[in-house]
Parts: sequence; C-alpha cells; structure tokens
Amino acid sequence: MAKRILTGLKPTGEQFHIGNYFGAIKPLIQLSQDNPDADIFLFLATMHAYTQIHNGEELKKNTLTVLKLYAACGADLERFMIYNPADIPGHAQLNWVLTCLTIMGTMERMHSYKDALAKGKAGEISVGTFCYPILMAADILLYDADIVPVGKDQKQHVEYARDIAQKFNKAYGEIFKLPDVYIRNEVAVVPGIDGRKMSKSYNNYI
Amino acid sequence: MAKRILTGLKPTGEQFHIGNYFGAIKPLIQLSQDNPDADIFLFLATMHAYTQIHNGEELKKNTLTVLKLYAACGADLERFMIYNPADIPGHAQLNWVLTCLTIMGTMERMHSYKDALAKGKAGEISVGTFCYPILMAADILLYDADIVPVGKDQKQHVEYARDIAQKFNKAYGEIFKLPDVYIRNEVAVVPGIDGRKMSKSYNNYI
Repeated sequence: MAKRILTGLKPTGEQFHIGNYFGAIKPLIQLSQDNPDADIFLFLATMHAYTQIHNGEELKKNTLTVLKLYAACGADLERFMIYNPADIPGHAQLNWVLTCLTIMGTMERMHSYKDALAKGKAGEISVGTFCYPILMAADILLYDADIVPVGKDQKQHVEYARDIAQKFNKAYGEIFKLPDVYIRNEVAVVPGIDGRKMSKSYNNYI
Repeated sequence: MAKRILTGLKPTGEQFHIGNYFGAIKPLIQLSQDNPDADIFLFLATMHAYTQIHNGEELKKNTLTVLKLYAACGADLERFMIYNPADIPGHAQLNWVLTCLTIMGTMERMHSYKDALAKGKAGEISVGTFCYPILMAADILLYDADIVPVGKDQKQHVEYARDIAQKFNKAYGEIFKLPDVYIRNEVAVVPGIDGRKMSKSYNNYI
C-alpha cells in the first residue's frame, strides 16, 4: 500500500505568515514531491478551530482562502485527498473512545495546554483546548497515516497519538498503525520578530 | 408536542442494588405512569460506561441484563424509546462542540470529578470521567428533553446542561430546549450500609 502522509489545515486565520509557510506548507509540498507515490491526506480542521472560532461563515471563508493559498504556494491540490472531519462521524466518535482511555495527567503535561495556561487565566481555557491532542490523535489514527509533518511544537501530540495507539493495540489487537512524526529541523520553529515562536496570537509575525 | 422524559441506563454492572431501584428505576416508572402522554426516552449508555468498562461483550451482556431488570421492576418497555448513542453520531459530534464551548473551571467544579479526585490519585483519572457531564449534556440537548429524572448527585450535571444550552442559544439563536431536572427528594440519596451514598464502587450496597 502507498505511504500515507497526513496533515490538517486549521482555518483560524485568513492569511499565512512566514512561519506557517516554512513550518507547515513548504514541508508538506516538499514531502509530496519527494514521495510521488504517497497518498496525501489534507483535512480541513474546522472542528479543531472551534476552540478559537465559533462563527461558521468565518470558518468557511478562511478554509477556502487558505486552500487557495496552498495552491498559490505550489501545492498540487489535485493530488491531495481533501476532506472535512466535521462531515465524518468517526472523528468525533473515536475522539470519545480515546478520551476514555487517556488519563488526566497525560493531557495536563501537553505543551499546548501549558502554553495556554501561561497565556491566560487557569480555569478560563476551554475544555476543547485541553482535549485537543486527543481529537488530533483520532484524526491521525483513523486513516492509518504513516507520516505526519508538524512543527516542533506539535511533536508531542504525534508522540501521544503513537502512545494511545499502542495502548489500544495492546488491549484490543493490532488495530491502529503507529504514525511517524516528520519535522524539518532547520525550520522546526520559525522565530517571530520578538524572538518567540512566530504566531498570530503573539502578533509577532511577518 | 408530548413532553419528553429522558434518562440513561449505564451498564456498568449486571445487577441493581436498592439504591439504583429507589434512586433511578422507581422514579422513572412513577414518572411514566404519572405522565401517560409523555414520550419516554431511555438510552443505553455504553459510550458513557467506557470510562469504567473497556470490554464490549461485558457491556452488551450487562445492557441486556439491566433492561430485563427494568422490565422485572415494572417498566413498560414497549412504551419506551430505547436506543444506543454509540449508534447515533450526533452524540459524539455535539459532545465535541460543547467541549469547545465549556471552560475548564466548569468541569473542575463538578462534584463527580471532585469525588473521583477524592477516591483516587489526581492525574490518574481518565479524561472521559472529567468530560462526562459534557457528553451527558449532549445526550439531553439532542432530544429536546423536558424532564430528566436523576439522583441528587447528578443534579449539577443537568444544571450544566441548562447553562451550556443557554450559552449556545444566546450565541446562535433558540436551538436547544432547556431541560428540567426531576428529583424525588425523599429518595434523592439512598444511604449505604456505611452511611455514604449506596454505590457499587463503595461496596456498601444491599
């Protein structure tokens, strides 16, 4: 079977910044060119954006704009499997199953949650932000993904996906494939103009 | 439209104890007799039992046994709408939507989570136990339930379902009906042989 490269496009903004380009888009294009026989799964992560955006029209508009930007950056979208987990019940269903198999400590140790704690007041963060890596694991495991290109800040999420897949397989037999993370080290974190990771939420991007 | 009375049957054990009978089964039978025109929704909460049981055969067996016990206690099952949320994607999907609209502090304040913390080691509780009231709110809100009979210990969960429905309706228009909790105060908590709430997990039941 052809290798499967899987990534998600989270439509939380209408534009890309240079960090997005070097950290996410360029690696995906490079990977797809280096693996001409691979299947490329690109999902529109509107369900994932619910942690930040609660406006359906805005999500739809952002999604279309960002897809166009992928094409403009050189992605061969004709070759990509493009889909929206919000239309595919298995994502939310597997998400719940994995939620019940995950202990609180595992999510409490996620960098993404710790970053959210550091940015805002504890207790005001959404449960969706806390549980985000579980949904991400469901996204990855549902499709037997071989390679998941991510920025360095999301490495821990793919490691958790591997861990929970192993835990599941150990209990119920070999159901899920263990995904490998792919990080281009030279661009793993693109610094913003203030030296922190370039991010829309830090307003330090170009 | 006929009033809707909704309750779930969690198949975490094969037997009822007297606390289950007085706290859950008898009130439901009484409510259904007092409201002959009402629709009675009884769901098989296997998805909810994943927080405790990870064996499909055991869940199936328990579910059938417990349904038979309902019938033996006098429930007119012919009149009940009986279904399993695990077969209906909307439960897991609405669960995720509500997860993103709920702040951590709300779940941290749930008695059920605090009880779990008190019983076990912090960090070892499943995320499913933490998020349980969110799935329960999805179960209730999906069906426009009018009345939800529960034990006193679950009153807070129905109050949260009302709160999150109000929050959703305020943002997106009148989508969800606000459910009313129904508690028979004289049997709200059945004490076990050690004085605590009668519970299988306390091993204090008869």
